[in-house]
Amino acid sequence: MIEQEASTPQVVSEYVYRRQVQYRDTDASGIVHFSAFFCYAEEAEHAMWRSVGLSVEPRETEIGWPRVSASFDFRRALRFEDEIEVRIRVVAKNAKTFTFESVITCRGEVAAIGTITTICVRKRSGEPLKAIDIPDEIANRFQVAAV
Amino acid sequence: MIEQEASTPQVVSEYVYRRQVQYRDTDASGIVHFSAFFCYAEEAEHAMWRSVGLSVEPRETEIGWPRVSASFDFRRALRFEDEIEVRIRVVAKNAKTFTFESVITCRGEVAAIGTITTICVRKRSGEPLKAIDIPDEIANRFQVAAV
Amino acid sequence: MIEQEASTPQVVSEYVYRRQVQYRDTDASGIVHFSAFFCYAEEAEHAMWRSVGLSVEPRETEIGWPRVSASFDFRRALRFEDEIEVRIRVVAKNAKTFTFESVITCRGEVAAIGTITTICVRKRSGEPLKAIDIPDEIANRFQVAAV
Amino acid sequence: MIEQEASTPQVVSEYVYRRQVQYRDTDASGIVHFSAFFCYAEEAEHAMWRSVGLSVEPRETEIGWPRVSASFDFRRALRFEDEIEVRIRVVAKNAKTFTFESVITCRGEVAAIGTITTICVRKRSGEPLKAIDIPDEIANRFQVAAV
Repeated sequence: MIEQEASTPQVVSEYVYRRQVQYRDTDASGIVHFSAFFCYAEEAEHAMWRSVGLSVEPRETEIGWPRVSASFDFRRALRFEDEIEVRIRVVAKNAKTFTFESVITCRGEVAAIGTITTICVRKRSGEPLKAIDIPDEIANRFQVAAV
Repeated sequence: MIEQEASTPQVVSEYVYRRQVQYRDTDASGIVHFSAFFCYAEEAEHAMWRSVGLSVEPRETEIGWPRVSASFDFRRALRFEDEIEVRIRVVAKNAKTFTFESVITCRGEVAAIGTITTICVRKRSGEPLKAIDIPDEIANRFQVAAV
Repeated sequence: MIEQEASTPQVVSEYVYRRQVQYRDTDASGIVHFSAFFCYAEEAEHAMWRSVGLSVEPRETEIGWPRVSASFDFRRALRFEDEIEVRIRVVAKNAKTFTFESVITCRGEVAAIGTITTICVRKRSGEPLKAIDIPDEIANRFQVAAV
Repeated sequence: MIEQEASTPQVVSEYVYRRQVQYRDTDASGIVHFSAFFCYAEEAEHAMWRSVGLSVEPRETEIGWPRVSASFDFRRALRFEDEIEVRIRVVAKNAKTFTFESVITCRGEVAAIGTITTICVRKRSGEPLKAIDIPDEIANRFQVAAV
């Protein structure tokens, strides 16, 4: 679906994703609902995959990436129309899992820091999800970021 | 998945679904986001299916129900913790489509009235969605409501 | 909040907003949930406001824009990572309301066409929303698009 | 808004909230999106407040409860129409914060375990959120659950 261009990097450790807070992200307290931060981190993760010419979920794939754990610490509220930056880094890579850390900033200040661990599974119709080793052609594209 | 009990009605024309406004349904204006009304109508529709012993999407099904059109007129704002009632009625039934009307009330007053038309499709991996006639065992369970 | 730059146009009739389908927009049928189209149209509308140096909801405003009605006709399914374009046009403008039409396309084909009417209200703490005339400094920025 | 009935308990340490997985909670992988678990936990928390005659956000309140941190470990996938149970417990209570643990089960098996810490703030128009001591009439209603 997404073809790799000549300029596509081969390996990624860190990626910066930018987007604006949309109205639906907010709740009646006037700020962004805490569950939306997890979606921001996921959007950054998927953009990171695309940055190395991959899709986390190409059409007709049998491979999926459910989450093993997800957490965020919240430091500052975000509001409608805030321009945010999600700096996502590969912080761990194992046979079956990746762990990504996302630092969300707005106007140069940290709004939240979160971590998501995702596991590679085989999805087959009528069968439960089964954890599998990350295929080499994917694993080779992600490298743990230097500290 | 959902077995039909002895007391399950055979045919449905109208169904009343109740739920409470949750915090995530609201936005920064302090009221329920307009897109959430469409989810309320969908929840009522799916509960109506269950009321006749059906699921709109049993596991491993090849049949899907994408929406052809959806509309709502909004009369009153809904707020966090409001108890709402969605009265959904079958207002049209054709070879391939159902049309449902939903009247959402809160404290006895109409908050919104909406209509959703949904079409029966066959979903096959790698093929585009294809409209098909509604299978008899489903079509027979829904009857257009008397005016 | 958003200051008008020298190059900001004074009046808008039509705006093109682009974004990509995110994973959270999809549902278990594998396509974008129909309620997400309403959010896409809203995002386009808010971007249209910003294109003339306005925010639909500046901080501390007393003015709000609840929806009077919203509808979409759906022609084609959208899927994860699809690049979409929302062409939004002002199709009616009255003392208290704006009506916007949104045509959503993907790969040059129309996926959905929708219309949203929004009403200008005064929000005061503890009072019900009250419809008011659209202030001139806002009304003057939007012009009904030529047919 | 929600009046305390004669039978309302005075103090709560644990609460069981039940709901069904709705279609909008799912994503294209066919299972519930991980961000929705945080909403399930929040719904349980708000129901727990109501169980002692309180609302987390009564109309016109100046008090808000933004999240300091939120995390979930995921054990099993949830699917459309699954009946789930969220057992929420007060696991810590400090001058300004509550910490709640939520165990989500389906068909008797644990699907996910999460923790949310929430801080009491004063919200005033035009001012940043300010952490304050939890008012006694609220703090007195929540008691840390026995281990």
